[in-house]
Amino acid sequence: MARKRSLDEGPVIAGQILDDAARLFYNKGYDQASIRDLASLSGMSPSTIYHHFRNKQEIAFQVIRRFMVNFNEALLPVVRDSSRPVLDRLDDTVRLHLEISDQRLPELLRMQSFRDILADDQEREIARLARDYHDGVKDLIRQGCARGELTVSDATLVTMGILDMLNGVRAWFDHAGKLSLAEVVRAYTDIVRRTVGAPTSGAE
Amino acid sequence: MARKRSLDEGPVIAGQILDDAARLFYNKGYDQASIRDLASLSGMSPSTIYHHFRNKQEIAFQVIRRFMVNFNEALLPVVRDSSRPVLDRLDDTVRLHLEISDQRLPELLRMQSFRDILADDQEREIARLARDYHDGVKDLIRQGCARGELTVSDATLVTMGILDMLNGVRAWFDHAGKLSLAEVVRAYTDIVRRTVGAPTSGAE
Repeated sequence: MARKRSLDEGPVIAGQILDDAARLFYNKGYDQASIRDLASLSGMSPSTIYHHFRNKQEIAFQVIRRFMVNFNEALLPVVRDSSRPVLDRLDDTVRLHLEISDQRLPELLRMQSFRDILADDQEREIARLARDYHDGVKDLIRQGCARGELTVSDATLVTMGILDMLNGVRAWFDHAGKLSLAEVVRAYTDIVRRTVGAPTSGAE
Repeated sequence: MARKRSLDEGPVIAGQILDDAARLFYNKGYDQASIRDLASLSGMSPSTIYHHFRNKQEIAFQVIRRFMVNFNEALLPVVRDSSRPVLDRLDDTVRLHLEISDQRLPELLRMQSFRDILADDQEREIARLARDYHDGVKDLIRQGCARGELTVSDATLVTMGILDMLNGVRAWFDHAGKLSLAEVVRAYTDIVRRTVGAPTSGAE
Protein backbone atom coordinates (compact mmCIF):
# COMPACT_ATOMS: atom_id res chain seq x y z
CA MET A 1 0.00 0.00 0.00
CA ALA A 2 1.45 3.35 -1.06
CA ARG A 3 1.87 6.00 1.61
CA LYS A 4 1.72 9.76 1.13
CA ARG A 5 4.72 11.56 2.49
CA SER A 6 4.32 15.33 2.44
CA LEU A 7 6.18 17.47 4.95
CA ASP A 8 3.11 18.36 7.03
CA GLU A 9 2.42 14.68 7.60
CA GLY A 10 5.25 14.35 10.11
CA PRO A 11 3.14 13.00 12.98
CA VAL A 12 1.38 10.55 10.64
CA ILE A 13 4.70 9.21 9.36
CA ALA A 14 6.13 9.02 12.87
CA GLY A 15 3.05 7.03 13.90
CA GLN A 16 3.48 4.67 10.95
CA ILE A 17 7.10 4.12 11.89
CA LEU A 18 6.05 3.23 15.44
CA ASP A 19 3.40 0.82 14.13
CA ASP A 20 5.94 -0.91 11.93
CA ALA A 21 8.59 -0.90 14.66
CA ALA A 22 6.20 -2.53 17.13
CA ARG A 23 5.54 -5.36 14.67
CA LEU A 24 9.23 -5.69 13.81
CA PHE A 25 10.33 -5.86 17.47
CA TYR A 26 7.53 -8.32 18.15
CA ASN A 27 8.45 -10.63 15.28
CA LYS A 28 12.21 -10.35 15.29
CA GLY A 29 13.07 -9.24 18.82
CA TYR A 30 14.46 -5.82 19.73
CA ASP A 31 18.13 -6.81 19.73
CA GLN A 32 17.92 -8.47 16.32
CA ALA A 33 15.94 -5.68 14.64
CA SER A 34 17.86 -2.93 12.80
CA ILE A 35 16.88 0.47 11.46
CA ARG A 36 17.58 -1.03 8.04
CA ASP A 37 14.97 -3.77 8.69
CA LEU A 38 12.53 -1.10 9.80
CA ALA A 39 13.20 1.01 6.71
CA SER A 40 12.63 -2.01 4.51
CA LEU A 41 9.40 -2.94 6.30
CA SER A 42 8.11 0.65 6.20
CA GLY A 43 9.06 1.40 2.62
CA MET A 44 10.97 4.43 3.92
CA SER A 45 14.63 5.35 3.79
CA PRO A 46 16.71 5.08 6.97
CA SER A 47 17.23 8.86 6.77
CA THR A 48 13.46 9.43 6.92
CA ILE A 49 13.38 7.31 10.06
CA TYR A 50 16.33 9.19 11.58
CA HIS A 51 14.52 12.43 10.75
CA HIS A 52 11.80 11.39 13.20
CA PHE A 53 13.73 9.40 15.82
CA ARG A 54 17.23 9.67 17.21
CA ASN A 55 17.92 5.92 17.29
CA LYS A 56 16.41 2.46 17.82
CA GLN A 57 16.17 2.96 21.57
CA GLU A 58 14.18 6.17 21.10
CA ILE A 59 11.80 4.26 18.82
CA ALA A 60 11.33 1.50 21.42
CA PHE A 61 10.65 4.10 24.10
CA GLN A 62 8.10 5.91 21.91
CA VAL A 63 6.34 2.62 21.07
CA ILE A 64 5.89 1.88 24.77
CA ARG A 65 5.09 5.47 25.70
CA ARG A 66 2.46 5.89 22.97
CA PHE A 67 0.79 2.65 24.02
CA MET A 68 0.64 3.68 27.66
CA VAL A 69 -0.63 7.17 26.88
CA ASN A 70 -3.39 5.70 24.70
CA PHE A 71 -4.17 3.04 27.32
CA ASN A 72 -4.53 5.67 30.05
CA GLU A 73 -6.60 7.91 27.75
CA ALA A 74 -9.03 5.02 27.28
CA LEU A 75 -9.02 3.70 30.84
CA LEU A 76 -8.65 6.67 33.20
CA PRO A 77 -11.90 8.47 32.21
CA VAL A 78 -13.75 5.19 32.89
CA VAL A 79 -11.95 4.52 36.16
CA ARG A 80 -12.44 8.10 37.40
CA ASP A 81 -16.04 8.74 36.30
CA SER A 82 -17.50 9.23 39.77
CA SER A 83 -21.00 9.67 38.31
CA ARG A 84 -21.15 5.92 37.60
CA PRO A 85 -21.47 3.01 40.08
CA VAL A 86 -18.13 1.59 41.25
CA LEU A 87 -18.84 -1.94 40.08
CA ASP A 88 -19.81 -0.82 36.57
CA ARG A 89 -16.53 1.05 36.30
CA LEU A 90 -14.58 -1.91 37.65
CA ASP A 91 -16.21 -4.28 35.14
CA ASP A 92 -15.46 -1.87 32.29
CA THR A 93 -11.87 -1.55 33.48
CA VAL A 94 -11.38 -5.33 33.32
CA ARG A 95 -12.92 -5.50 29.84
CA LEU A 96 -11.06 -2.53 28.37
CA HIS A 97 -7.75 -3.58 29.94
CA LEU A 98 -8.01 -7.03 28.35
CA GLU A 99 -9.36 -5.79 25.00
CA ILE A 100 -6.78 -3.05 24.47
CA SER A 101 -3.92 -5.33 25.57
CA ASP A 102 -5.13 -7.89 23.05
CA GLN A 103 -5.56 -5.41 20.20
CA ARG A 104 -2.11 -3.96 20.69
CA LEU A 105 -0.21 -7.07 21.64
CA PRO A 106 2.94 -6.31 19.59
CA GLU A 107 3.51 -3.15 21.57
CA LEU A 108 3.27 -5.03 24.84
CA LEU A 109 4.52 -8.56 24.78
CA ARG A 110 8.19 -7.68 24.85
CA MET A 111 7.85 -4.70 27.12
CA GLN A 112 9.92 -6.38 29.82
CA SER A 113 12.93 -6.63 27.54
CA PHE A 114 12.20 -3.10 26.28
CA ARG A 115 12.60 -1.89 29.83
CA ASP A 116 16.08 -3.34 29.97
CA ILE A 117 17.13 -0.91 27.28
CA LEU A 118 15.40 2.28 28.42
CA ALA A 119 17.40 5.20 29.80
CA ASP A 120 16.64 6.25 33.37
CA ASP A 121 14.49 9.25 32.41
CA GLN A 122 12.57 7.13 29.88
CA GLU A 123 11.98 4.46 32.51
CA ARG A 124 10.73 7.11 34.96
CA GLU A 125 8.27 8.40 32.35
CA ILE A 126 6.91 4.88 31.72
CA ALA A 127 6.73 4.20 35.46
CA ARG A 128 4.79 7.44 35.96
CA LEU A 129 2.23 6.44 33.32
CA ALA A 130 1.86 3.00 34.90
CA ARG A 131 1.44 4.60 38.33
CA ASP A 132 -1.33 6.92 37.09
CA TYR A 133 -3.34 3.87 36.06
CA HIS A 134 -2.51 1.90 39.21
CA ASP A 135 -3.53 4.85 41.39
CA GLY A 136 -6.78 5.30 39.45
CA VAL A 137 -7.77 1.67 40.03
CA LYS A 138 -6.74 1.84 43.68
CA ASP A 139 -8.83 5.00 44.21
CA LEU A 140 -11.79 3.30 42.55
CA ILE A 141 -11.49 0.35 44.95
CA ARG A 142 -11.21 2.74 47.91
CA GLN A 143 -14.35 4.58 46.77
CA GLY A 144 -16.14 1.24 46.62
CA CYS A 145 -15.00 0.45 50.16
CA ALA A 146 -16.05 3.89 51.42
CA ARG A 147 -19.53 3.33 49.92
CA GLY A 148 -19.74 -0.11 51.55
CA GLU A 149 -19.89 -1.88 48.16
CA LEU A 150 -16.43 -3.47 48.36
CA THR A 151 -14.21 -4.82 51.13
CA VAL A 152 -10.46 -5.23 50.86
CA SER A 153 -7.78 -5.55 53.53
CA ASP A 154 -5.17 -3.63 51.52
CA ALA A 155 -6.22 -1.61 48.46
CA THR A 156 -2.65 -1.27 47.16
CA LEU A 157 -1.95 -5.01 47.21
CA VAL A 158 -5.34 -5.94 45.77
CA THR A 159 -4.72 -3.46 42.95
CA MET A 160 -1.28 -4.97 42.26
CA GLY A 161 -2.83 -8.44 42.25
CA ILE A 162 -5.64 -7.44 39.88
CA LEU A 163 -3.34 -5.63 37.43
CA ASP A 164 -0.76 -8.44 37.41
CA MET A 165 -3.58 -10.91 36.76
CA LEU A 166 -4.94 -8.83 33.86
CA ASN A 167 -1.46 -8.21 32.44
CA GLY A 168 -0.75 -11.93 32.59
CA VAL A 169 -3.53 -12.79 30.12
CA ARG A 170 -1.74 -11.52 27.03
CA ALA A 171 1.11 -13.99 27.57
CA TRP A 172 -1.15 -17.06 27.32
CA PHE A 173 -4.37 -16.03 25.59
CA ASP A 174 -4.63 -17.64 22.17
CA HIS A 175 -7.26 -16.60 19.65
CA ALA A 176 -7.01 -20.09 18.18
CA GLY A 177 -7.69 -21.67 21.60
CA LYS A 178 -10.88 -22.99 23.18
CA LEU A 179 -11.98 -19.72 24.78
CA SER A 180 -12.89 -16.43 23.11
CA LEU A 181 -11.58 -13.19 24.55
CA ALA A 182 -15.18 -12.35 25.55
CA GLU A 183 -15.33 -15.53 27.63
CA VAL A 184 -12.02 -14.68 29.31
CA VAL A 185 -13.34 -11.17 30.01
CA ARG A 186 -16.49 -12.61 31.60
CA ALA A 187 -14.52 -15.03 33.80
CA TYR A 188 -11.98 -12.39 34.85
CA THR A 189 -14.73 -9.90 35.63
CA ASP A 190 -16.05 -12.36 38.20
CA ILE A 191 -12.57 -13.20 39.54
CA VAL A 192 -11.76 -9.51 39.97
CA ARG A 193 -15.12 -8.85 41.64
CA ARG A 194 -14.30 -11.61 44.10
CA THR A 195 -10.91 -10.12 44.97
CA VAL A 196 -12.65 -6.93 46.11
CA GLY A 197 -15.46 -8.68 47.95
CA ALA A 198 -18.17 -7.72 45.45
CA PRO A 199 -21.06 -9.96 44.35
CA THR A 200 -20.37 -11.88 41.13
CA SER A 201 -22.74 -12.41 38.24
CA GLY A 202 -23.78 -15.68 39.88
CA ALA A 203 -22.93 -17.71 36.78
CA GLU A 204 -21.06 -20.34 38.75
CA MET B 1 36.34 -17.53 48.46
CA ALA B 2 38.43 -20.41 47.12
CA ARG B 3 36.60 -23.31 45.51
CA LYS B 4 37.72 -26.93 45.36
CA ARG B 5 37.85 -28.30 41.85
CA SER B 6 38.50 -32.04 41.76
CA LEU B 7 37.18 -34.14 38.88
CA ASP B 8 34.44 -35.85 40.86
CA GLU B 9 32.98 -32.48 41.77
CA GLY B 10 31.51 -32.01 38.29
CA PRO B 11 27.91 -31.49 39.40
CA VAL B 12 29.03 -29.12 42.18
CA ILE B 13 31.04 -27.01 39.75
CA ALA B 14 28.22 -27.02 37.21
CA GLY B 15 25.89 -25.82 39.94
CA GLN B 16 28.29 -23.04 40.91
CA ILE B 17 28.51 -21.95 37.29
CA LEU B 18 24.71 -21.78 37.11
CA ASP B 19 24.57 -19.75 40.36
CA ASP B 20 27.12 -17.28 39.02
CA ALA B 21 25.47 -17.15 35.59
CA ALA B 22 22.08 -16.37 37.15
CA ARG B 23 23.59 -13.40 39.01
CA LEU B 24 25.53 -12.26 35.95
CA PHE B 25 22.49 -12.38 33.64
CA TYR B 26 20.45 -10.60 36.32
CA ASN B 27 22.96 -7.79 36.80
CA LYS B 28 24.25 -7.37 33.27
CA GLY B 29 21.48 -8.76 31.07
CA TYR B 30 21.75 -11.94 29.03
CA ASP B 31 22.77 -10.27 25.76
CA GLN B 32 25.52 -8.24 27.38
CA ALA B 33 26.97 -11.11 29.44
CA SER B 34 29.82 -13.14 27.96
CA ILE B 35 31.41 -16.48 28.89
CA ARG B 36 34.51 -14.43 29.66
CA ASP B 37 32.53 -12.34 32.20
CA LEU B 38 31.21 -15.55 33.71
CA ALA B 39 34.71 -17.05 33.92
CA SER B 40 35.96 -13.93 35.63
CA LEU B 41 33.07 -13.89 38.10
CA SER B 42 33.42 -17.61 38.86
CA GLY B 43 37.18 -17.65 39.14
CA MET B 44 37.19 -20.44 36.52
CA SER B 45 38.70 -20.60 33.07
CA PRO B 46 36.40 -20.37 30.03
CA SER B 47 37.50 -23.92 29.14
CA THR B 48 36.21 -25.21 32.49
CA ILE B 49 32.87 -23.60 31.73
CA TYR B 50 32.80 -25.07 28.20
CA HIS B 51 33.62 -28.46 29.75
CA HIS B 52 30.25 -28.29 31.53
CA PHE B 53 28.08 -26.34 29.07
CA ARG B 54 28.00 -26.11 25.29
CA ASN B 55 27.41 -22.35 25.13
CA LYS B 56 25.75 -19.36 26.80
CA GLN B 57 22.30 -20.38 25.61
CA GLU B 58 22.70 -23.83 27.19
CA ILE B 59 23.66 -22.12 30.47
CA ALA B 60 20.57 -19.88 30.36
CA PHE B 61 18.37 -22.91 29.67
CA GLN B 62 19.90 -24.85 32.57
CA VAL B 63 19.47 -21.88 34.94
CA ILE B 64 15.76 -21.75 34.13
CA ARG B 65 15.33 -25.52 34.07
CA ARG B 66 17.06 -26.04 37.42
CA PHE B 67 14.91 -23.36 39.01
CA MET B 68 11.69 -24.87 37.72
CA VAL B 69 12.68 -28.41 38.70
CA ASN B 70 13.50 -27.20 42.25
CA PHE B 71 10.31 -25.14 42.37
CA ASN B 72 8.17 -28.12 41.37
CA GLU B 73 10.03 -30.38 43.82
CA ALA B 74 9.12 -27.97 46.61
CA LEU B 75 5.57 -27.17 45.50
CA LEU B 76 4.08 -30.27 43.92
CA PRO B 77 4.27 -32.51 47.03
CA VAL B 78 2.39 -29.79 48.94
CA VAL B 79 -0.16 -29.23 46.19
CA ARG B 80 -0.77 -32.96 45.72
CA ASP B 81 -0.83 -34.13 49.36
CA SER B 82 -4.43 -35.34 49.40
CA SER B 83 -4.16 -36.25 53.11
CA ARG B 84 -4.27 -32.51 53.98
CA PRO B 85 -7.22 -30.08 53.78
CA VAL B 86 -7.47 -28.23 50.46
CA LEU B 87 -7.29 -24.77 52.01
CA ASP B 88 -4.15 -25.58 54.02
CA ARG B 89 -2.47 -26.74 50.84
CA LEU B 90 -3.63 -23.67 48.94
CA ASP B 91 -2.30 -21.34 51.66
CA ASP B 92 1.06 -23.17 51.67
CA THR B 93 1.19 -22.93 47.88
CA VAL B 94 0.79 -19.16 47.99
CA ARG B 95 3.46 -18.82 50.69
CA LEU B 96 6.00 -21.17 49.09
CA HIS B 97 5.44 -19.72 45.62
CA LEU B 98 6.17 -16.20 46.88
CA GLU B 99 9.06 -17.21 49.17
CA ILE B 100 10.92 -19.32 46.60
CA SER B 101 10.41 -16.70 43.88
CA ASP B 102 11.85 -14.11 46.24
CA GLN B 103 14.82 -16.21 47.33
CA ARG B 104 15.78 -17.04 43.77
CA LEU B 105 14.93 -13.77 42.07
CA PRO B 106 18.01 -13.63 39.79
CA GLU B 107 16.97 -16.88 38.14
CA LEU B 108 13.50 -15.54 37.46
CA LEU B 109 13.28 -11.85 36.79
CA ARG B 110 14.61 -12.02 33.26
CA MET B 111 12.96 -15.27 32.37
CA GLN B 112 10.83 -13.61 29.71
CA SER B 113 13.86 -12.49 27.77
CA PHE B 114 15.47 -15.89 28.42
CA ARG B 115 12.56 -17.48 26.62
CA ASP B 116 13.28 -15.43 23.53
CA ILE B 117 16.60 -17.22 23.20
CA LEU B 118 15.58 -20.81 23.96
CA ALA B 119 15.54 -23.45 21.25
CA ASP B 120 12.18 -25.09 20.54
CA ASP B 121 12.94 -28.28 22.46
CA GLN B 122 14.24 -26.26 25.42
CA GLU B 123 11.10 -24.13 25.40
CA ARG B 124 8.94 -27.28 25.32
CA GLU B 125 10.78 -28.65 28.36
CA ILE B 126 10.25 -25.40 30.30
CA ALA B 127 6.59 -25.27 29.22
CA ARG B 128 6.12 -28.86 30.42
CA LEU B 129 7.51 -28.02 33.86
CA ALA B 130 5.27 -24.94 34.10
CA ARG B 131 2.28 -27.04 33.05
CA ASP B 132 2.95 -29.66 35.74
CA TYR B 133 2.65 -26.95 38.36
CA HIS B 134 -0.36 -25.28 36.74
CA ASP B 135 -2.15 -28.63 36.51
CA GLY B 136 -1.33 -29.43 40.14
CA VAL B 137 -2.89 -26.17 41.34
CA LYS B 138 -5.90 -26.63 39.06
CA ASP B 139 -6.47 -30.15 40.35
CA LEU B 140 -6.25 -28.86 43.93
CA ILE B 141 -8.92 -26.25 43.17
CA ARG B 142 -11.10 -28.91 41.55
CA GLN B 143 -10.75 -31.14 44.61
CA GLY B 144 -11.84 -28.22 46.76
CA CYS B 145 -14.88 -27.69 44.53
CA ALA B 146 -15.74 -31.40 44.58
CA ARG B 147 -15.61 -31.33 48.40
CA GLY B 148 -17.84 -28.23 48.49
CA GLU B 149 -15.09 -26.10 50.08
CA LEU B 150 -14.44 -23.92 47.01
CA THR B 151 -16.52 -22.56 44.14
CA VAL B 152 -15.09 -21.41 40.82
CA SER B 153 -16.73 -20.91 37.44
CA ASP B 154 -13.65 -22.04 35.48
CA ALA B 155 -10.80 -23.79 37.31
CA THR B 156 -8.34 -23.28 34.43
CA LEU B 157 -8.86 -19.51 34.26
CA VAL B 158 -8.83 -19.06 38.03
CA THR B 159 -5.56 -21.00 38.14
CA MET B 160 -4.06 -18.78 35.41
CA GLY B 161 -5.22 -15.70 37.30
CA ILE B 162 -3.77 -16.88 40.61
CA LEU B 163 -0.41 -17.89 39.14
CA ASP B 164 -0.06 -14.65 37.12
CA MET B 165 -0.87 -12.70 40.28
CA LEU B 166 1.75 -14.60 42.31
CA ASN B 167 4.34 -14.34 39.51
CA GLY B 168 3.72 -10.61 39.31
CA VAL B 169 4.92 -9.97 42.87
CA ARG B 170 8.61 -10.45 42.15
CA ALA B 171 8.58 -7.57 39.66
CA TRP B 172 7.48 -4.99 42.23
CA PHE B 173 8.20 -6.39 45.70
CA ASP B 174 10.97 -4.42 47.38
CA HIS B 175 12.63 -5.61 50.59
CA ALA B 176 13.40 -1.96 51.34
CA GLY B 177 9.71 -1.02 50.96
CA LYS B 178 6.95 -0.55 53.51
CA LEU B 179 5.72 -4.15 53.52
CA SER B 180 7.59 -7.29 54.53
CA LEU B 181 7.32 -10.39 52.38
CA ALA B 182 5.37 -12.04 55.22
CA GLU B 183 2.79 -9.24 55.02
CA VAL B 184 2.50 -9.66 51.27
CA VAL B 185 2.09 -13.42 51.77
CA ARG B 186 -0.70 -12.82 54.28
CA ALA B 187 -2.56 -10.39 52.01
CA TYR B 188 -2.17 -12.61 48.93
CA THR B 189 -3.34 -15.66 50.87
CA ASP B 190 -6.61 -13.85 51.48
CA ILE B 191 -6.86 -12.56 47.90
CA VAL B 192 -6.28 -16.05 46.51
CA ARG B 193 -8.83 -17.55 48.94
CA ARG B 194 -11.36 -15.05 47.65
CA THR B 195 -10.74 -15.96 44.00
CA VAL B 196 -11.76 -19.54 44.79
CA GLY B 197 -14.72 -18.59 46.96
CA ALA B 198 -13.13 -19.72 50.24
CA PRO B 199 -13.50 -17.96 53.59
CA THR B 200 -10.66 -15.55 54.38
CA SER B 201 -8.86 -15.11 57.66
CA GLY B 202 -11.36 -12.39 58.51
CA ALA B 203 -8.63 -9.82 59.17
CA GLU B 204 -10.39 -7.16 57.12
